[in-house]
Parts: sequence; C-alpha cells; structure tokens
Amino acid sequence: MKNKRKQHVISTKPPSGTRDFLPDEIRKRQYVTGVIRDVFEQYGYEPLETPAFENIETLLGKYGDEGNKLIFKILKRGEHEHTGEADLALRYDLTVPLARVVAQYQNELPKFFKRYQIQPVWRADRPARGRFREFYQCDLDSIGSTSPIVEAEILAAVCDALTKLSFSEFTLRLNHRGVLAGLLAAAGVREDLHGAALVALDKLDKIGVDGVQKEFVARGIDDRSAQACLKLFVDAGGPGDGSAADAVARIEQAIGAVPAVENLRAIVAAVEGTTAGQRIRIDRSLARGLSYYTGAIMEIAVADLQGSLGGGGRYDGLIGMFLGRDVPACGFSIGLERILVVMSERGMFPATVARGAVDIIVTIWNADRLADAIALAAELRRGGLRVEVYPEPDKLGKQFKYASGRSVPFVTIVGDDELAANAVAIKDLRSGDQTSVPRADAADFVRRRLAHNG
Amino acid sequence: MKNKRKQHVISTKPPSGTRDFLPDEIRKRQYVTGVIRDVFEQYGYEPLETPAFENIETLLGKYGDEGNKLIFKILKRGEHEHTGEADLALRYDLTVPLARVVAQYQNELPKFFKRYQIQPVWRADRPARGRFREFYQCDLDSIGSTSPIVEAEILAAVCDALTKLSFSEFTLRLNHRGVLAGLLAAAGVREDLHGAALVALDKLDKIGVDGVQKEFVARGIDDRSAQACLKLFVDAGGPGDGSAADAVARIEQAIGAVPAVENLRAIVAAVEGTTAGQRIRIDRSLARGLSYYTGAIMEIAVADLQGSLGGGGRYDGLIGMFLGRDVPACGFSIGLERILVVMSERGMFPATVARGAVDIIVTIWNADRLADAIALAAELRRGGLRVEVYPEPDKLGKQFKYASGRSVPFVTIVGDDELAANAVAIKDLRSGDQTSVPRADAADFVRRRLAHNG
Repeated sequence: MKNKRKQHVISTKPPSGTRDFLPDEIRKRQYVTGVIRDVFEQYGYEPLETPAFENIETLLGKYGDEGNKLIFKILKRGEHEHTGEADLALRYDLTVPLARVVAQYQNELPKFFKRYQIQPVWRADRPARGRFREFYQCDLDSIGSTSPIVEAEILAAVCDALTKLSFSEFTLRLNHRGVLAGLLAAAGVREDLHGAALVALDKLDKIGVDGVQKEFVARGIDDRSAQACLKLFVDAGGPGDGSAADAVARIEQAIGAVPAVENLRAIVAAVEGTTAGQRIRIDRSLARGLSYYTGAIMEIAVADLQGSLGGGGRYDGLIGMFLGRDVPACGFSIGLERILVVMSERGMFPATVARGAVDIIVTIWNADRLADAIALAAELRRGGLRVEVYPEPDKLGKQFKYASGRSVPFVTIVGDDELAANAVAIKDLRSGDQTSVPRADAADFVRRRLAHNG
Repeated sequence: MKNKRKQHVISTKPPSGTRDFLPDEIRKRQYVTGVIRDVFEQYGYEPLETPAFENIETLLGKYGDEGNKLIFKILKRGEHEHTGEADLALRYDLTVPLARVVAQYQNELPKFFKRYQIQPVWRADRPARGRFREFYQCDLDSIGSTSPIVEAEILAAVCDALTKLSFSEFTLRLNHRGVLAGLLAAAGVREDLHGAALVALDKLDKIGVDGVQKEFVARGIDDRSAQACLKLFVDAGGPGDGSAADAVARIEQAIGAVPAVENLRAIVAAVEGTTAGQRIRIDRSLARGLSYYTGAIMEIAVADLQGSLGGGGRYDGLIGMFLGRDVPACGFSIGLERILVVMSERGMFPATVARGAVDIIVTIWNADRLADAIALAAELRRGGLRVEVYPEPDKLGKQFKYASGRSVPFVTIVGDDELAANAVAIKDLRSGDQTSVPRADAADFVRRRLAHNG
C-alpha cells in the first residue's frame, strides 16, 4: 500500500546528474568565479555569454559520433511537437558557441578578441562521482593573433588565478604539437602512427614506462622506434629541474631549430617577466587528448593531485569553422568543478566564505517592537553589516538557538533597559560574551570583532 | 545560384528569441545583478541556484494550459530518442523550483528561509520587442513566517536595490488581497464575480475609469455595484498624498478592522524605520494579475514609466505544493530585463561600466621587446590596472588606432629612450597628451588620471 502511494508522489530531487546549489555551496562557487573573473579582467579578457541552447544544426557533427549522442535535444513546440523532432539543443561546450559568435559579429568584435566565458554546459553522460549532466565550464580564449604573447598571457593569467585561489604548489606544463611530431619523427615512428604513439605516451602518468612500451608495441610501433621514443620522451624529456630555456635547448639538440622549437622558445622568453615564469615546466611527454591543437599545449599540474585542474593550447583550425577559413586561436579551460572539489577537500576557502552569509541577527524583544527591530537592522546595514531580522516574537532562547544553528556569530538584544539607554546588547554566540554598547556604535563594534575573529 | 548555396550555410545568429551577450552588455548585466546581490545579502537573503531543467512532471500542470504549451521539453536520449517523448523540461520560472527545493531540503534549510535566485528561464513565447525565449528572472522570497517583518524587509531591500541603481523617482505600491475582497464586498459585488472585477480594476492604468466601468458591466457586475466599486477604489482609493497610515485608516472606515487591515497597518508600521518608509503608497486598486496571492500585494512604480519594474506579494498556498500543506511565503520578482532596458535608455550606468573593460594597452615597440611588454603589463596589473598587451609588433599608429577603436583611454610606449631611462611614456588617447613617467610610477599616474576623468 505504501509503495503504491509512493508511485504517485513526484520526486523532489533535482534531475539525475544535476545539482541544486544551496547557499553555502553558491558562496563557494561565487568566490571562485569572482577571483577568476577579476584576474581575467585585469588581463583584458572580456566576458561573453551565449544562450543555453543553439539551433541543433549548429551543434550536430561538431563533437563526433559519441558527442552527438550526448547532446540534449529540445522538442519542437506547438503543432510540431507530435513529430518528435528536435530543432534546438543544449550547449555542449563553450567553443562551438564562441566560433559562432566570432562568425556572427566579425565586424563588431575587436581584431584581437580576448574573451572568457563561465557558463554551464549539458551532456547526457552517465552520471558518476564527479561527473554531472549539468556542469560549469570556464574558458579563456584569445582570437586573432599567432604571437607568443598570446600563450604567455594565458599562462600568466591562469597562474595568477590559481595563486589568488591560494594554490601554491603547482606548475604549468608546456609542450608543443610540433615538438611532439619532431620527436616522433626523430625516433623513427611512421607519420601515420603518430596519433597512436601520442595516445600511448599520454598514459605515461597512469601506466608508467613499461605500460607505455607495451602500448607502443600493441599499436604497431616497431620495437626500435618504441625504445627511441622512450629515450627521447621519458629519459630526456621529463620536466626536470633545469630552466625551461634549457629544456627547449635540449629539444633543439634532438630535432633541430624547427619552427615549433622557435615558437616554444619565444613563449618561454615572453612568460619570463611574469609570475608564471617560475611555474613553467617544459614537458615533452605532454600530449593532451584533443587532436585539434596546432601549436603550444599547456596543462596545470598540482602537487599531490592526480589529473589536472585545466589545460589548453593553440588550435588555429577550429574557431573559423563557421567562416570557412583558419582563424588563429589559443585557449585554456579551467576545471572549475574540479577546483571547487579540491578547495573544499583541502579547506582552502577564506574564513569569510566559510563563515556564512549573515553577520548578525536582530532579535525581537516582544510583539510591540517589530518596527524598532527593523529600524535597528537598517542602522546596522548602513554600518556595513549583513543583517537578518528574526521575524517573530519568540522566546529569546529560541531566537539565539536559531542564530547558532545558522552559524551566525552575533545577535542583538534590545530590552527595556537598552531601549531606555539608547543602547544595544551584542551577544557573541561563539563565546557567550554579551556587551552593551551605545546604539550608534553597534555596527562598528561588530565589524571590529568580525575582523578580529573571522 | 547564390540563393541555392545560402541554403547550405548554417546561420550563425543565436536561436530565435535568444541573445548573445557581448562584453559591453555583460558588463551592464553584471553591474546590475552585482548591486542587487549585494543589497539582498545585506538583508540576509541567501543565494540559491537550481538546474536549468527539471523532470518534466515537476513542471507540467503548474502553469495552466497556456503555460504547458510554452514549456521547452527535452527529448529522451539514446534508444528512447526515436519515441519522441520528453522526460525533462527547461525551467519556466523560479517559483516551482523553489517549492521543490523547500520540499527536498526541509531538514537542512533554516526555519526561516530567505533566498534570492537570479537565473535564466525559458519560455516558447512568440519573440517580440522586449519579449525573449531566454530571459533572466530575479526573485526574492521569504519562506516560513507570516510576520509583517517579512513584507517590510522585502520592501526595504527592493527600495535599497533600486536606490543603489540610482533610481530616484519611484514608489512602492502596496495593497492587500483581503482589502480587495473587503472593498468588493462593501460595494456589493457577488463573491463569484470578485475575480472578474479585479481583472477589470487591474486595467485602470491602461483604460481609465470609463473603460473599467464598461468592463464591469461586460463581466456581469450590476450597475450599482460598479458605481460603488469605482467610488471605493478609484475616487477614494488612489495613492494620494497622505501618509500610508492615513490611507490604511481610510480603508478601515470602509471595511472595518478586518485582519487584512490590521496586517497592512502592521506592515506599514514595520517599514516606517527603513528607507522604504517614504516610498510606500497604499493603492487600493492594485490587484496584480496572479490569483495565487493570499495577503499583501506590492509593485514598483517609476515616474514616467508605463508598467512596472517588478512586483510581488504573499502567497501562502503555493510553496508547499510538493509538501501537501500550506507554507507561509512572500516574494518579490524584480524585472531585471526591464531594468536593464530602462537604465540603458536613460544613461543610468556609472562611467566605470560605460567606459569598458581595459584601462591601458601596452604597445609593442618592436619584435625584440615582447618580453619587456609583458613584464610591463605585469607591473601595471600589480598596480591595480586592467591591462591588455597588443600582441604584434605592428606600426605604433596602428596600435593606437586599435586602442582608440576599443575605447581604451591610455597606451604605453617604451621606445629606446624610455627603456634607457627606465621610463614609460603614457599617451592619453582622448586628449592626445603624452607624458613620460618613471616606470615605477606608471600605474599610479594612470590610476590618478582615471579617477579624475572617469
């Protein structure tokens, strides 16, 4: 009987793979996106936002067969609804919308268009721990120039953002598509096997040297080339302790002064005078999965953390997809959801974010004092505090308990004595201390205590 | 031939009824939502965000037949795609998701849950000027108390937000569902015609007294009741010049000291000590279309502006829809999109928002100076400026032109002389003035100029 009834009850959970963000979680998300946004804007990257859905033909075919299946499609409306056809689809990433925007507004956008975009995307993936059907992407892209300044500024902005989020032990791995090709050629790997070799190399972190060696053989790379590869990429290729410039010089010894080496050297030189200068690690084995990169490849590596907090690179062939010509582009995608998880696990949020939303609750002495409570709240707000008014004339103990339960550090009490003396009693719910202060000084008093105790 | 080819070209416009927000537009939107957010948080309202889509059964049937047709439905995926069935639907408003959240997290949320939510909603309306298929709603709701403090705090928060956005000539119209019912009864309107009478009264602004009179008759209200209505609502009922307390007293004379009058009086008294105190106008004829209001009704009225910038009221019967019981609730929806239009039309954005994103562009003297340009940019950013580096060693004139075209007020020039003297030439592109300053003072110099000239 109970089960039978349950079938008629609508679930109030959010849809599978999506999340409701309650206030504490939003505060964390707003903090992180706020820091990133501020840094990006210091660098002259400008915000862009695009609609949640695109015309379906804009998205279909852009993400491969697998991607096509994961796109959420929106049913036609009205008389067409019964056809079961879709004409719109939810945004799957931020790159295709950017390519559309670059084509649509080519006469309005600056010649060098530096944009960031922080918006959700939707993928009908099977939900799993850390994998959602609605999640935010945070992309930074620089369109219109092939100058090494583009890569250097992206690396510096990413470095500043991570530092402001109080990540300290991280490096920025840097490689170049042309270096990968040059080293594979030097090792004698046939060009048609380059892709296969890179897929194997990309697993180095996970499966180790022996594993990569086996993968090479399984993918049809002859033993001699496989050995040469491991020598060139692994023995000589790790980030090492030397400077990035030294690492570039060693690559030049292996494959000559090809354009990719010159480009990498120029990027390293450009980044030198920024805070990212000390963070750069040339890593020959960095391949990243995406085949659309055409130049530099970059990735964040954090000490004691598997995987990456973000990555990117130059991809001159993609942004012009709706224009029918190549457009220089270099981008970086910051792993916002991952950063939030890591910062929560490691307790990296500042006390002001962790503490909650309200500084003080104005309690109600009795039912005749509602207007005075609201007036006091207005005074405290003018003094810069975030103030909630307890709405009902409950017993004071109940009001205190409510405030404690919400982790609000202070409450006010205005009893008959305080009212007569034009004073306010401020109770610190963490220590239990109660102090009576002149009403005009109440906001200052609380602000000082907050600054002192967090 | 040309037409034939065009059919194969994918449109790069955003889907019908949606908008791409380019940087200048986003800056305005971020400014407005930032101001509103800050004010709401000062009042202890906390942020909530819910997924873009809901399970379809959560939304269907909640918005009437007309609403059902306007819901964007998402096709089932994978093997079910061919059935043409939908299992998800895009958020249509922020109230149903709030009701779902209140039911789902009833043990985690505070007893008095004050939340704001600023997120897009989607409606398959026919697009028109000012009517979009994707638009933002900005809702403020207070759940869990019937205290007049709830209404007073909402009115004060809305008033502060509008004031901070530099609206000066506005009032907050206030009425009460129970007052409407009492006045209609006093006028002799049969209870089953109350709804019809309110619909007619709601058009007073648009069609005038004569129009309302005709509507009354058309809706079956006898002539005598219609006359009495007009007398009670219009002649005696306008906001007038008297105090809100006086207006409440006059309503009491007409319908007695019923609970609605007492509630209205308590709200007026509670709001007295806030900045909203002087803004309140009791307006007997304010009905607002939505039939779900159960208590106070409120609306923003701006001088010289047709329609409203937002409204709300108490609706104790709705938020508990998934709990199967009434839950006290009072809310206000700020017309974010309308506010943006009005502020743009009236030039109400501060100069810092209008000016654009970048304070200064670092120009490139020649191809050997890329690294120095980036280092200078890093110094200026540390000095608090938003800095873009021109990425290519183009002729200086071209670089200046680019900066002017982007409305960037300053550029740096580091020629051979400046480099030797450890100086930077700062050119003000608005006046043409060029000043050479010690490199260490460059950021301060620009900051002072910006503070002075906007």
